[in-house]
Formats: sequence, C-alpha cells, structure tokens
Amino acid sequence: MMSNLGKIAIIGLGLIGGSLAKALKKAQMAEIIAVDFSKSTLAEALAQNVADEAYDWNGDLSPLCEADIVVLAVPVGAMGSVCQRLKSLNLKEKVVISDVGSTKTSVLSAFQETWGEIPPFFVPAHPIAGREKSGFAYAEADLFQNHRVILSTLPNTDNYALGTISRMWHATGAMISYLPVEIHDEILGATSHLPHLLAYLLVDMLNQNLHHEDIFSYSAGGFRDFTRIASSSPVMWRDIAVNNHAVLSDLLDIYKQRITELQTLLHNQDEEAIEALFQRAKNARDNHYQKEHT
Amino acid sequence: MMSNLGKIAIIGLGLIGGSLAKALKKAQMAEIIAVDFSKSTLAEALAQNVADEAYDWNGDLSPLCEADIVVLAVPVGAMGSVCQRLKSLNLKEKVVISDVGSTKTSVLSAFQETWGEIPPFFVPAHPIAGREKSGFAYAEADLFQNHRVILSTLPNTDNYALGTISRMWHATGAMISYLPVEIHDEILGATSHLPHLLAYLLVDMLNQNLHHEDIFSYSAGGFRDFTRIASSSPVMWRDIAVNNHAVLSDLLDIYKQRITELQTLLHNQDEEAIEALFQRAKNARDNHYQKEHT
Repeated sequence: MMSNLGKIAIIGLGLIGGSLAKALKKAQMAEIIAVDFSKSTLAEALAQNVADEAYDWNGDLSPLCEADIVVLAVPVGAMGSVCQRLKSLNLKEKVVISDVGSTKTSVLSAFQETWGEIPPFFVPAHPIAGREKSGFAYAEADLFQNHRVILSTLPNTDNYALGTISRMWHATGAMISYLPVEIHDEILGATSHLPHLLAYLLVDMLNQNLHHEDIFSYSAGGFRDFTRIASSSPVMWRDIAVNNHAVLSDLLDIYKQRITELQTLLHNQDEEAIEALFQRAKNARDNHYQKEHT
Repeated sequence: MMSNLGKIAIIGLGLIGGSLAKALKKAQMAEIIAVDFSKSTLAEALAQNVADEAYDWNGDLSPLCEADIVVLAVPVGAMGSVCQRLKSLNLKEKVVISDVGSTKTSVLSAFQETWGEIPPFFVPAHPIAGREKSGFAYAEADLFQNHRVILSTLPNTDNYALGTISRMWHATGAMISYLPVEIHDEILGATSHLPHLLAYLLVDMLNQNLHHEDIFSYSAGGFRDFTRIASSSPVMWRDIAVNNHAVLSDLLDIYKQRITELQTLLHNQDEEAIEALFQRAKNARDNHYQKEHT
C-alpha cells in the first residue's frame, strides 16, 4: 500500500491535467484541488468527483496554500505567467511543484526567471501520453498506464521532491524514466514535435497548394493515420514549436536534406537504393513495435 | 440480383488480389482462378475456398484461356512482364483486363509497349484501400466495402469492358469514381505516395542520424500512427515511387519550400502565423473526417 499523497493542486484541467486527476482519484491516492479558467470544466470535475475542490484561475487562489503538490498542466507558453502567480501565493513551505510540459528548456526558463534560480522543489516531468484530442472531455484515468513519464531532474533537485513526484506518477501506472533536459528536448523534438510539424505542413499544403476539389476524399487509412496528429491543439503545438524552435529547425534542416537525397534517387531511378531506404525504415519501425508487443 | 461474372483470373494473390478474390467469392459472383508465384499461398487459397483453381505463375498458364476477366494485382513494377506473358497466352476473344495499380501512367505504358496501343479491353482501376500489411494472410472480403475504386478510362475504352469491371467492383461493396490518368497520379501522389515517402524518410532519419539508444521508445501514439505507413512493403512502394517520380519530385519540392517557410516563422517566433498554419491544417482535416462521420 502506498501512502496518501495529500492534497494535489492541478493547474489546468485539460487532457493531461484531467487524466492525472482521474488517475489519482481512481488510485485513491490524493485529494484533488482543480484550477482552471473554464467554470464548466471545474463544475464537471466536481460533478464527476474528479476534484474535491475547484477554483477559477481568475479568482481567489489562496486555498492553494493547503496543497502538498502543485502540478502545472498548462500549455508551455503559459508556464511563465503561472509561475508568477504561484510565487505570489503563500504556498506550503514543503510544497513540491511539477509540470507536464512537452519542452523542458523553456519551462525551466520560466522557473528561473520567476525564482531567480530553478527552485529545488521543482521536478520537471513530462508524461509521454498525448493524443490529438484535447480538453477535459477526453481525459481518462488510464491514459498514463504503461506509458513513460520522463523526469528531468537537475543537480539541485530536492530528493524529497523527486520522491514525491515519482510516487505520484507511479500511482497512475506510468513508468518513470530519466533524461537530462537537453536530451529530452532533442529526443522529443525528433519523435513527437517534428512529426507534428510535418503533419500540419502536409495537410495545409494539400489544402492550399493543390486545387482539386475535395482532394482528401481520395485518401485512405494511411493518410488518415499519418495526419491524425494534425488535428491536435494548434495553441499547444504553437507553444511547443516556438519553445523548442532551435532543436526543430535543425531537425527540419536534416529532413530537407534527406528529402533532397531521395529526390536524387528518384531522378536516377535508383530502385535498389530506394528499396534499401524503405526496408531500413520498415525494419527499424517493425523492430521497435514488435519489441513492445503492440 | 446481379448476374454471375464468370471466371475471374487474379494474377497476384497479395492483400489486394486476395481481398478481391475473397470479396467476389463471398458475393458468389464469380469463379476465381488464382495465379501466384507462391505455392503455399495458392494452396491456402484453395483450402479456404477463395480460389476454384490455382496456378503457379512459373508453370503452365494455358487455363487462363477460360477467364472472362483477368485482374493484374501485382506491384506496378511487374506490370510490364505480366503484360508480356498475358499477350503470349491464347486469351478469350472478349476477355476484359484490369489492374489495381497505385500509379496509372506507368501501368498504361506497360500495356502500350506490349500491345502497341492501350487495348480497348483494358480498364485501368485502383481501389483506394491499402494498409501497411501486405500479403494474402491479411486479405479480407470486406477490404473494399465503402472504399473508392478509381477507374481511369480512356477514350477508346470499350463499354462492355467498362461495364464488366464496374460490376465486378460493385460486387465488392466499393464505390466507383472516375479520374483521368494524370489527375489520378497527381491526387494519389499527394494523398498517398507523398505521405509514404515522408514516413519512410522520418523513420530512417531518426534511426540513422540520431544516435540516442532506443529513441523510438520515447515515442507515443502520435508517432506510431504517423509512421504506420513506414511498415508498408518496400518493394511495392519502391515501384510506386519510381513510377510516379515526376509528380513526387515536384510535390517534395513544394513540401521543402513549406518547411523552409515554417523555419522562418520559427526563427521569427511568429506565434500568430504558426498558430494560424496549425489551425488551418486542423480545420481542413477535421472538416473532412467530420463529413465522413468516421
């Protein structure tokens, strides 16, 4: 039996924040203080017993002084203003703060700017479990089950804080991994942010540059899957793109270079090299998903 | 009640050829003569009662002289040699030939080279129903249900041939559409071939250019969906890429240009323009799939 985590304030009750609240309530591990700017979301969370208390972001947040843990589950572009607000509150002395941001460098900057240094009670965290749907309506208690949560601890991160956040995520069924901040942003830039940009670009290109009526109606399941992430939240992904822009611009340069190389193979009708490229990619992908048995 | 289509020879019992055989048998619309180079696939097709007769491509094909319809369900790169072989057989005078190729220009070239002109008894067809799995083992009778089949008829296409192939596809539950050859290759290049190239390139790039151990293990559902088509048959997609190379190279040029524009937006931290781009893409995609109610 794991001990109770106390009161956890979740700022932002979207897909991730809402799923975290549901998971922790399901595990009976914590009381949840929900904070959001949407009154209807807060009402819904109370009605579903996903939150024990609920407060409007634009109202009085003094009840957060009771929170043992505060989790920032807002778009990464909003981290700065949320930090400022938190600092102005009279939080518990041993409060632990964490986040769920998809880019870590920029989140750390927000904390640094607000507190003058990255505070030791802040544990940067990123659950690798999104989907193209956003908002509390899609939140699920099982969203993190068997998914990775990446903790990007810093040299000064407090052990009590790290243990607290580890226990919280463990309660959701997630698997905890550790990655340094820069490596996190590079790996997630490659496996998550880059594909999102590529999918948005493709859909927009077909929609704008090609003038066939209803071009998408000639698409099949492959296109549907490939472009699913282009239905993701534009605000969330704008923030991620802007905050990880240096990594992404480098990756896009490499990708353009790879496209140019493929164009040369096409021009030369180099069937052998084209098949080898496709086969390498297929092997890499099949090997990974075979390993996962899914 | 639709009348029986007679004997249909299907050359190549892969995902598409096998599914066509299963669909036609399920609809009790035809006797199936299966031709493949895999003896085990032929044996399996006979055992499952998906084929009434089965012949090894490398053996005697004289029984094909009984076929009322011959469907070429081989990779587009193999169309030329299959055409040559068919021409050498003593096919029925009123035989109708069709194909299932993903690129039409190159298939028509194969017929032109073999017969001196595109024969009027040939009806170019393309069922828009693939998946990343290939082979008879994945064939399903319902694969074409409510999916488009594009017929690219030519001015000299025989009406009897067109009616025969229309009836055959109608029996599978497919919806028949018409597109001129060039438009077919341009639209499918954009909605199908281009995404496949982009997915293969991304997986290969992450596998080769980035040296983090097990980088794919940090990916989530979005990456899995985005790269699903990179598990498709390398031989089939090599043929498609080579045969539609001119269209694809132009599309890749446009795509690189769009990437460069996004890089400029990232460099300028132009949040408004980035969000607008993502929102346009999301709207275009959501509108389409909403319309389809799926």
